[in-house]
Amino acid sequence: MKATVLVRPKPGILDPQGQAVESSLRHLGFAVADARVGRLVDVDLPTDDRDEARAQIERMCEQLLTNPLIESYEIAFADA
Amino acid sequence: MKATVLVRPKPGILDPQGQAVESSLRHLGFAVADARVGRLVDVDLPTDDRDEARAQIERMCEQLLTNPLIESYEIAFADA
Repeated sequence: MKATVLVRPKPGILDPQGQAVESSLRHLGFAVADARVGRLVDVDLPTDDRDEARAQIERMCEQLLTNPLIESYEIAFADA
Repeated sequence: MKATVLVRPKPGILDPQGQAVESSLRHLGFAVADARVGRLVDVDLPTDDRDEARAQIERMCEQLLTNPLIESYEIAFADA
């Protein structure tokens, strides 16, 4: 089954990419109140069990995909 | 209103980051069929009108947030 992991800088953590995007958007004339930049990882897992997939993705996040000190993550399933 | 822009490499476009993640996950023992890496931008716009927000975000994507040659994007609203 397919899932998307959304990884974001935690609140309070400096986000220079987001600041650059926010500043550039304002220079282009867009009235943005805030912008934060994170990343996403689409994974395709050989299981149809959502709980099993979630457990696996949580381990992936702990071991590779995120830095838990400064990032939080959210798991979204393709058919959700 | 808050929205998230999900930016992904288009199908068929080489994704070296995704390949590296996929390879690393396999080395860690995870059976992943595929992994693709993209980015996300959370924006906070001073409008409560979803159509207006969507139109603004589409212009942001064209002008700054995405490279339309190699990337596709999707807009998700916080309360959706």
